[in-house]
Amino acid sequence: MPSDSSILSDGLYMRTNTALDAYLQPRLKAIEQALDQWLPAPGAHPRQLPEAMRYATLDGGKRLRPMLCIAAAEAVGSTMQQVLPTACALELIHAFSLVHDDLPALDNDTLRRGKPTCHVQFGEAIAILAGDALFAHAFHLIALQAEHSPAERVVRVLQLIADATGVDGMVGGQVEDILSEHEPVSPATLAYIHSRKTGALIRASVLSGAILGGATPEAEQALHAYGTALGLAFQIVDDILNETGDPARLGKATGTDRARQKATYPRLYGLDASRARAQQELQNALDALKPFGAEANPLRWLAHYIVEREQ
Amino acid sequence: MPSDSSILSDGLYMRTNTALDAYLQPRLKAIEQALDQWLPAPGAHPRQLPEAMRYATLDGGKRLRPMLCIAAAEAVGSTMQQVLPTACALELIHAFSLVHDDLPALDNDTLRRGKPTCHVQFGEAIAILAGDALFAHAFHLIALQAEHSPAERVVRVLQLIADATGVDGMVGGQVEDILSEHEPVSPATLAYIHSRKTGALIRASVLSGAILGGATPEAEQALHAYGTALGLAFQIVDDILNETGDPARLGKATGTDRARQKATYPRLYGLDASRARAQQELQNALDALKPFGAEANPLRWLAHYIVEREQ
Repeated sequence: MPSDSSILSDGLYMRTNTALDAYLQPRLKAIEQALDQWLPAPGAHPRQLPEAMRYATLDGGKRLRPMLCIAAAEAVGSTMQQVLPTACALELIHAFSLVHDDLPALDNDTLRRGKPTCHVQFGEAIAILAGDALFAHAFHLIALQAEHSPAERVVRVLQLIADATGVDGMVGGQVEDILSEHEPVSPATLAYIHSRKTGALIRASVLSGAILGGATPEAEQALHAYGTALGLAFQIVDDILNETGDPARLGKATGTDRARQKATYPRLYGLDASRARAQQELQNALDALKPFGAEANPLRWLAHYIVEREQ
Repeated sequence: MPSDSSILSDGLYMRTNTALDAYLQPRLKAIEQALDQWLPAPGAHPRQLPEAMRYATLDGGKRLRPMLCIAAAEAVGSTMQQVLPTACALELIHAFSLVHDDLPALDNDTLRRGKPTCHVQFGEAIAILAGDALFAHAFHLIALQAEHSPAERVVRVLQLIADATGVDGMVGGQVEDILSEHEPVSPATLAYIHSRKTGALIRASVLSGAILGGATPEAEQALHAYGTALGLAFQIVDDILNETGDPARLGKATGTDRARQKATYPRLYGLDASRARAQQELQNALDALKPFGAEANPLRWLAHYIVEREQ
């Protein structure tokens, strides 16, 4: 239990959930519409690729990364409309990473968001290329962001997102994750994997919203700390849910990390210590938001949601 | 034979080759040094990934795309140093595309630049992720370009390169290429594949140099026409060499297109008509450069080289 336990009392948590739902609903709708509009439409050429890109992205997912980008932008005085291209770019990068991670040569998963994975549906070749095309399309959307933002800010966001996804970010974390299967795991390697495999893109989602929204250096620093704590909390909870979650609710198989002897928090520290660490990171994320007032409430609600979710 | 046949007379062609070599040598050295410097160094984490990225990029390749970027920048009055990050980004994108195209689920090639392909050397999982990391790293370098160029130009180049690589560019062309194997090929589908699979990135290489170099709209338009003709010529020659080339000299297997009944110029039009079309596109490329003086000679030499190469 974090020190600021009052915020987790039942009554407040229920109010928080209701407030979060009211916050999420119109934004989710706008994100879905924008993704649908900005993803390529099926046509004569190329065959199958737009279909596979849409299959891997639409009708599923919590849209957590776009939501964090939007909430961070709003916390520093900007609006959803101002950051929507970059918010959607972050979701495309997430979708790309799932398509490639699910491939037979990697995690070999066949179920994702309650549907057959992309390579099961379209074949391996199209899935590899659909991932590539989603990644390229994310950068198309980041360039589109220049219609709403000064080019200097767009370039900063480009650097941030490219670095969060590349060799020292998401892809680097995924490589260590795979190489660490069936190996003894050190705390240093686990920390490396967790900070990069999902943490880097989650932090980049928060920071890109902050940068595009025109955050002061102090606000940016606070949101950097928030995003770092949140990214770590997210991955720990993901590890826990892979052990204890309901596959029907999660829309994907569970127990897969244990079967592959993956480097996870529960494996190295046990479930109880993992839950305590997730709560601690939630508290760290909330503490980082202390310089903000009510304008950062959605970021607070999202932090609670991420740690207390069951899917 | 193109109408301007004098430019192809033996004596002039030999002088052109010597001039091209003198032009290429210092630039090749600078590109190799920059790639070596900007690619991640092997370290504790992530294991294997920097090695695989370097393996797929260094010690091989003609560096044609960076060279076209540099030559276009110089043709409009800029310098190699000013565009080197973007020039190298283009090479990383090319290397990424080769790594993924060679995968067992796609072209299943085992030899590239005279070496085992990336997945043969590092395994399929690392090869897929090394391709992804090279693609991400290309955008890292495009962001780095902002140290030399106004952010507005960098954003234009970002848009150009993202579009040239995505669903309506390189990846879209590659999808149609795969889906057209063992199928009757229509001229429309062949034109679609050729303009996108390699043509889009070659044109983007020329145009990114032009944009970063500060080309006038007229110069940009001329270089757009040059890049389009050159991209088509390049792919036709690639198709011809796959039929008639020397595997030892090419550093990769030949006859593979025919074995897979790929959509190629020789398959649809025959070798003689393909050679004539390549010469015609060379002439179109040279014609597009008529507004330029000697400052565009390297672009002229490169066009000759691309059409008359044997590797």
